[in-house]
Amino acid sequence: MNLKEEMKAMSQQVDAALAQWLPDSDVFPAVIHDAMRYSVFAGGKKLRPVLVLAACHAVGGVQEEVLPAAAALEMIHTYSLIHDDLPAMDDDDLRRGRPTNHKVYGEAVAVLAGDALLTRAFGVLAEAGMASARRDPARAALYLQVAQEVAEASGTLGMIGGQVVDMESEDKQIDMEIMEYIHRHKTGALIRVSLRVGALLGGGSAEQLAALTTYGEHLGLAFQITDDLLDIQGDEAKLGKPVGSDEKNQKSTYPSLLGIDGARQAAEQAMADALAALESFDEGAQVLRELARYLLVREN
Amino acid sequence: MNLKEEMKAMSQQVDAALAQWLPDSDVFPAVIHDAMRYSVFAGGKKLRPVLVLAACHAVGGVQEEVLPAAAALEMIHTYSLIHDDLPAMDDDDLRRGRPTNHKVYGEAVAVLAGDALLTRAFGVLAEAGMASARRDPARAALYLQVAQEVAEASGTLGMIGGQVVDMESEDKQIDMEIMEYIHRHKTGALIRVSLRVGALLGGGSAEQLAALTTYGEHLGLAFQITDDLLDIQGDEAKLGKPVGSDEKNQKSTYPSLLGIDGARQAAEQAMADALAALESFDEGAQVLRELARYLLVREN
Repeated sequence: MNLKEEMKAMSQQVDAALAQWLPDSDVFPAVIHDAMRYSVFAGGKKLRPVLVLAACHAVGGVQEEVLPAAAALEMIHTYSLIHDDLPAMDDDDLRRGRPTNHKVYGEAVAVLAGDALLTRAFGVLAEAGMASARRDPARAALYLQVAQEVAEASGTLGMIGGQVVDMESEDKQIDMEIMEYIHRHKTGALIRVSLRVGALLGGGSAEQLAALTTYGEHLGLAFQITDDLLDIQGDEAKLGKPVGSDEKNQKSTYPSLLGIDGARQAAEQAMADALAALESFDEGAQVLRELARYLLVREN
Repeated sequence: MNLKEEMKAMSQQVDAALAQWLPDSDVFPAVIHDAMRYSVFAGGKKLRPVLVLAACHAVGGVQEEVLPAAAALEMIHTYSLIHDDLPAMDDDDLRRGRPTNHKVYGEAVAVLAGDALLTRAFGVLAEAGMASARRDPARAALYLQVAQEVAEASGTLGMIGGQVVDMESEDKQIDMEIMEYIHRHKTGALIRVSLRVGALLGGGSAEQLAALTTYGEHLGLAFQITDDLLDIQGDEAKLGKPVGSDEKNQKSTYPSLLGIDGARQAAEQAMADALAALESFDEGAQVLRELARYLLVREN
């Protein structure tokens, strides 16, 4: 299998897990479950859950053991998108080529659908942990650690913190330090913790956990820089959203601070650093290696 | 100590726990931590955390063991109030006599402050569980169960579900069945789980857990009915919010469906049922008994 096929296979397994762990669309009160599924199954890349599965694979872990946690991370990512798109925040009408959640269900349901996905994510981690602990009591503490790390990565010292500083920086000239803070937190923290969750639940050693954490930090940076580049040079049809929004919003980005060539070089450096972190891994880390290379040439 | 003094003492311990588990107001990015604390320390009754402590006390548990979970439940309650007050939801300007979160910090920060409190609540449960498991490994699974129950009570099959049906019922004539669904979920689920969390972490028996669950269900009902009555007969200055809003919003309430006398009788019956559930408990359940009686005469 090449990377595209591999990612597609993983993404289908994640979709199946999400379908299993989310209430059906017709469960009362139906509108909220429908709204949750609308955004979760909007055809995203499922990058975070794929990273969980790939990290688990890299340390020789069992995929079934990490699927619920992978689904939980996608729920958290999706909740953050729903809330980011709200009129009070970025006020976006389109996401992945479809109307945003509040455009379809109204603002009140969109706020609650985000809340519900975040809540469900921790419910899934707890339930999966209870099931795992019934097979092996020692795993209960591991799931508590996973929940703690996911909460930290999603909270005000992680993703939410990055979003706050991003909002505060709107229409302002910011320096490299603040921009790196934003990206390391707004998108980087969840990417980083996805790798840690896969390694932790997959039974990786402390060294493997550290190496995958480093990989995740560089991958998150490469992902963000290419995201900024796509906003300048991307194809709207392939992206599923308008390009040029950063410039329109006078947003400081890697290209605006480093120039396009400088940003591309920084992305290449980040990719090289990500690959270097995987040096001690065998073939099991092949998906992670290809993912890092793929980010540089992605079109959406 | 009488009930007022007892509740005040408990509420001060909860405040201390909240202060300990929430990031300080000056931690970067300060605005979000300030916004979280603004609503958490707004002088509420702290009913849910007091119920956690009182249930723990009733089963002979150690208070220190449940304080973090008590704080987590107050964070979840507070997040739900911040989001409920948003313009897209109830659009309220005042809460407990002070400007609502979005009136002070703006809508975007208010959305994120709610998200952050919900996230932090599960982070606190996980951290407290890890600390407890270091003292006694068997407790890790118990904390997973607590997290699972709290997530369920706060999610679409609990509090959020009640909020959704409440919104859908606006400006509509609803029957008793729907109204009971709303209250059993919107406010009842979190009250009920507060008692369960106190009993579970306090080491209560299965019988004690069941009895406290029943108590919680009746208490939640009594609380809701008296809330409806206060909206008709209450004193704005004592309530810290305008009265008559249910009638203005053409909201179906216990008094509107049963009449004021009928509603008062229903509240008294709920209180009697709550007290009956405590029959097998000794003096340790005195605070819970007085709380049920207090609800009938409360003024805010």
